[in-house]
Amino acid sequence: MPNSDTSADRMARELFDEMARWPIFDPHTHINPRRPAARHFDEILGYHYYTELAHSAGMPVERVSAELDPDTRVANLVEYLDRIDSTVQYAWLLEIARTFHRFPHARITPGTIAGLLDRADHRRDGADWDREVWNSSNLEAVFLTNEFDDSLDGWDTAAYIPCLRTDDLVLKLNEPNTTARLRAALDADVNDLASLRAAIGRLFERFVDRGARACAISLPPDFAPRRASSGQASTSIRKAIHGMDLRPDERDEVRCAVFWMLAEFCAEFRLPFDLMIGPVRNVYPGGVAGGRDLFDRRVSLHDYREVFNHFGNVTFPVSTLAPDAAAELVAYAWIFPNVLPMGHWWYANVPAFIATDLRARLQALPKVKLVGYYSDAYKLEFIAPKFNMYRRILAEVLVDEAIRGRGWPVDQALQLAKLILIDNPKRIFGAVRPRSPVGI
Amino acid sequence: MPNSDTSADRMARELFDEMARWPIFDPHTHINPRRPAARHFDEILGYHYYTELAHSAGMPVERVSAELDPDTRVANLVEYLDRIDSTVQYAWLLEIARTFHRFPHARITPGTIAGLLDRADHRRDGADWDREVWNSSNLEAVFLTNEFDDSLDGWDTAAYIPCLRTDDLVLKLNEPNTTARLRAALDADVNDLASLRAAIGRLFERFVDRGARACAISLPPDFAPRRASSGQASTSIRKAIHGMDLRPDERDEVRCAVFWMLAEFCAEFRLPFDLMIGPVRNVYPGGVAGGRDLFDRRVSLHDYREVFNHFGNVTFPVSTLAPDAAAELVAYAWIFPNVLPMGHWWYANVPAFIATDLRARLQALPKVKLVGYYSDAYKLEFIAPKFNMYRRILAEVLVDEAIRGRGWPVDQALQLAKLILIDNPKRIFGAVRPRSPVGI
Amino acid sequence: MPNSDTSADRMARELFDEMARWPIFDPHTHINPRRPAARHFDEILGYHYYTELAHSAGMPVERVSAELDPDTRVANLVEYLDRIDSTVQYAWLLEIARTFHRFPHARITPGTIAGLLDRADHRRDGADWDREVWNSSNLEAVFLTNEFDDSLDGWDTAAYIPCLRTDDLVLKLNEPNTTARLRAALDADVNDLASLRAAIGRLFERFVDRGARACAISLPPDFAPRRASSGQASTSIRKAIHGMDLRPDERDEVRCAVFWMLAEFCAEFRLPFDLMIGPVRNVYPGGVAGGRDLFDRRVSLHDYREVFNHFGNVTFPVSTLAPDAAAELVAYAWIFPNVLPMGHWWYANVPAFIATDLRARLQALPKVKLVGYYSDAYKLEFIAPKFNMYRRILAEVLVDEAIRGRGWPVDQALQLAKLILIDNPKRIFGAVRPRSPVGI
Repeated sequence: MPNSDTSADRMARELFDEMARWPIFDPHTHINPRRPAARHFDEILGYHYYTELAHSAGMPVERVSAELDPDTRVANLVEYLDRIDSTVQYAWLLEIARTFHRFPHARITPGTIAGLLDRADHRRDGADWDREVWNSSNLEAVFLTNEFDDSLDGWDTAAYIPCLRTDDLVLKLNEPNTTARLRAALDADVNDLASLRAAIGRLFERFVDRGARACAISLPPDFAPRRASSGQASTSIRKAIHGMDLRPDERDEVRCAVFWMLAEFCAEFRLPFDLMIGPVRNVYPGGVAGGRDLFDRRVSLHDYREVFNHFGNVTFPVSTLAPDAAAELVAYAWIFPNVLPMGHWWYANVPAFIATDLRARLQALPKVKLVGYYSDAYKLEFIAPKFNMYRRILAEVLVDEAIRGRGWPVDQALQLAKLILIDNPKRIFGAVRPRSPVGI
Repeated sequence: MPNSDTSADRMARELFDEMARWPIFDPHTHINPRRPAARHFDEILGYHYYTELAHSAGMPVERVSAELDPDTRVANLVEYLDRIDSTVQYAWLLEIARTFHRFPHARITPGTIAGLLDRADHRRDGADWDREVWNSSNLEAVFLTNEFDDSLDGWDTAAYIPCLRTDDLVLKLNEPNTTARLRAALDADVNDLASLRAAIGRLFERFVDRGARACAISLPPDFAPRRASSGQASTSIRKAIHGMDLRPDERDEVRCAVFWMLAEFCAEFRLPFDLMIGPVRNVYPGGVAGGRDLFDRRVSLHDYREVFNHFGNVTFPVSTLAPDAAAELVAYAWIFPNVLPMGHWWYANVPAFIATDLRARLQALPKVKLVGYYSDAYKLEFIAPKFNMYRRILAEVLVDEAIRGRGWPVDQALQLAKLILIDNPKRIFGAVRPRSPVGI
Repeated sequence: MPNSDTSADRMARELFDEMARWPIFDPHTHINPRRPAARHFDEILGYHYYTELAHSAGMPVERVSAELDPDTRVANLVEYLDRIDSTVQYAWLLEIARTFHRFPHARITPGTIAGLLDRADHRRDGADWDREVWNSSNLEAVFLTNEFDDSLDGWDTAAYIPCLRTDDLVLKLNEPNTTARLRAALDADVNDLASLRAAIGRLFERFVDRGARACAISLPPDFAPRRASSGQASTSIRKAIHGMDLRPDERDEVRCAVFWMLAEFCAEFRLPFDLMIGPVRNVYPGGVAGGRDLFDRRVSLHDYREVFNHFGNVTFPVSTLAPDAAAELVAYAWIFPNVLPMGHWWYANVPAFIATDLRARLQALPKVKLVGYYSDAYKLEFIAPKFNMYRRILAEVLVDEAIRGRGWPVDQALQLAKLILIDNPKRIFGAVRPRSPVGI
């Protein structure tokens, strides 16, 4: 059997090795800053990618019930890991086991899990373990996903950067719990459009005061933002706040009006507004926790033209969930100064999809607008393996496109990689008063 | 001119050579089990891929009329073969000519066709030729496409496995011929919902008794299955059975009700339900036989959420016709335990589309759910060349992803190939009483 | 650092070097035949790809205002070029600077622009420079985009081939200017359906007399051509011609009726009808000139089935704007003899998209139907760099698919390249009385 190693492979590995030394700036995660690293391996294996893939491969949902103790849950899930061990998600898992826990085996199996559980048990180490993972991953900053009523207390917001997540305000305003949480968070009354606007303004103030660098929202395929006429919206919003039944058009009006209001505050507070377009929630209610959402691929950014035009001074880093919608995002980011192609998200976070998409972004978009990657991680340990996956793809694409294709020297390719991985996201999310949507 | 052969090429060829020795388990074809191999080369060249491509390249439809004698039809078509000799479909043809008929030339032309016709003339060999093709192709089992009124007699159903095709029941119940065929097949009356259900139940019994391993249907893009309320469906179905005019909503109700009923019987009889989503029939009525159907790419599996949820214990091997819909199928097969990505179908059965799709499936899906390929063939001779096309792509993708990308040893890559090509389809379609949709 | 050069790379370069010696037949451009080459570098840098990408990267629109003098405009734009210097569009620019102007530097910057402006100043050379660019690019024929009221005088129509562009007739008939232009162009009255038909007939005569080889139109995603009933269309068209307000259904009827009429004249005059499907105009009104249009990806050629069927003797070279719609075009060109896959257009004219699409076209379509590429250029200088981009991709794909994949000798691969690049477009657009849509 011949050696499979080509010179292009070797060059890609050199590029990767260099990138792997760089710090990581991660502009979107679901890390809990009060408990960022996993203290039990169940917090790693419990990631929805593993539970949902194991379930998809035949594991009953009950085997990973939240009511089980962590050791049992791990033991149950491990029985199914061999069914998913060819996936890229499993590759992240193995990299975590090997890197952070010096796992010596080639596979995580019922026979090798006990030792791994021991090695990965950091329940007594507390914050020391968080720091160790942070340092060995060479993390520089990690963006959070904070519910609007998060107190934002108890962590270093220069490392764990707050980010205002607004799904509930836009999509669930008519659920009583939302208004109750809003009132409790602000100790203020919220009765109508005016008091809602005042409340949301105070949320933005609080978040920005605590160092928030982005507002974010995930939006379903049937959402098409438009400027609602304030007279009508006023009535619908009052009905929503008071939990009254809404007609479909009123429900849509509420979503549009609150979304528009958020964009206005993003303009006022100079916050990028991350749009994560596509998910339909609870498509498969019988699934494991976190493994029930899917999408309808029939979406278009054309539905967002009015908001992109109206808010020319708001930066919109956009993620799309349907992998086949990626090419449209390239075109919209090509034309609209305030639309930026953001990471590779969830069902599109698969090397085959990333490689094609990344290639097109590199070929057709201003390099200052490329926001390479975000981990979407729930635990610190996942950040480095996910970024490494992306760095490997980036290295291969740069060898193909830049070095072989255009004769660039290696240094030039690495400079571009650094721009995409670090400089752009830091500038775009960091600049408090940018002169333009790209932050320059 | 340098040698184009790289070490990755050589390794891919070694993987392919090994796979080419394996038996073929083909879970979807249109083979006629009473006359499976081609006894005249016209049965090869008459495959719609050649007649439609030749017509697309300028050949008048009349040149391949069914009324012509086979030699004339072949002579007519061969005049146009040079216009399509760069296609992958032509590559299958050439492989057939060389492998089965020891065709010595590089091209099939008006000058070389006479010899090929002689070599491929097996009209006197009858079943001997069928056996020779079967053996030299190393076929293990071939799934059929049987109309519901097929008698299922006259062949070895362990080799040629029956499969209940149900398009007519769902899409053409209101055509008088359908009910007449149903009555004739069962020697029973079919007047209303209840007697229709009874009749379909008997069809399932008959098929399962004869070894059927799947129910299959192709569905147009405008079909969105939902549970029809039985009261309404009852009226619409009675109207359909009696050939009365149906309003569009009634027509849709009939389709939904019969489809739902079929899924219920799949659950009861533990048959996988192959969904082949996308074709619009007769888009180009002026085309050659078999070359008139196309699709509307605006489809989404989101339309199937209700059926996937309701029939959690029915296995749905899904094929999508629009190549750009492939990524969505990856996501749905990732989340729903009962949704499996099935082969690469028709307009999507093109190496460029297969390679991207296969890569994503390998990277993101449980390996036990991957059903590699089916030939969709009408004659036995096509099975091996089509499978070889897929095996070549699989070999290249495995070298890239597994061997070069993850450092897997060759044996591990071959084990995965075997799972995808043989073990999974055998288990998924073979298990009579599976414990879960993946058959484990 | 190892050498990145593989034998496949070397072979692709040899194929490219050969293709680069061939003449260019460019079946779609926006060249002004009265002033085809750029006499000032502003005419190069003013191409919408540069102004829109620079604007997208942060440049205010005013910096490239038409009211500025050319030197200032260039100086302004050059400040932003470093933000887009990783794009393929920038690679065209650099190739122009190096090839036509012997630009000695690696980058076009504020520091190097002055020398380039001098070298590229051909204001005194007039038509000599046009000829030099024509000859050094080895151009054979360049198709134009002529408004219907173009006088078609003043150039060699064997080199610069007229092409009747019909967007305004179909999409803007109800704007007073359109009818006024039509009346002025023909010195005839246009009042109703009959006189409109007579006028359009005379346009076709004039264009064909002057050597026109195609009729072309770009169509928005919401356009679905159908045969309008002539009674109704007659009223709507009269209203449109007289500038009266149209209801949406009337507006659509006018579009359909005029489009259908154009197709009838294409049949009568045997002109290919280029369909460029997808753009939505003015999605971003705040953009630079030429950089305001985008698309809605939710389109399907299924909407064109009636016109493809009805006009079986009209050749439709089709371009689609949404890159993800490319696979559907492969299927439609596979089935319909009169549908041809045309070039790679605008937002789809990106190597990552071209490569996948080209691979599928080569694998699945009759080789006589492949119309490789068109430049869409506004200035002659862009034709060679854009064709070179395509030739490089074609060379790589042919090495992969034909030489490595199927063992073709190099000559056979080059013959296929020549068919795609030259022979097919010349035959398809050149034949005055073709026997079939593919011109054979």
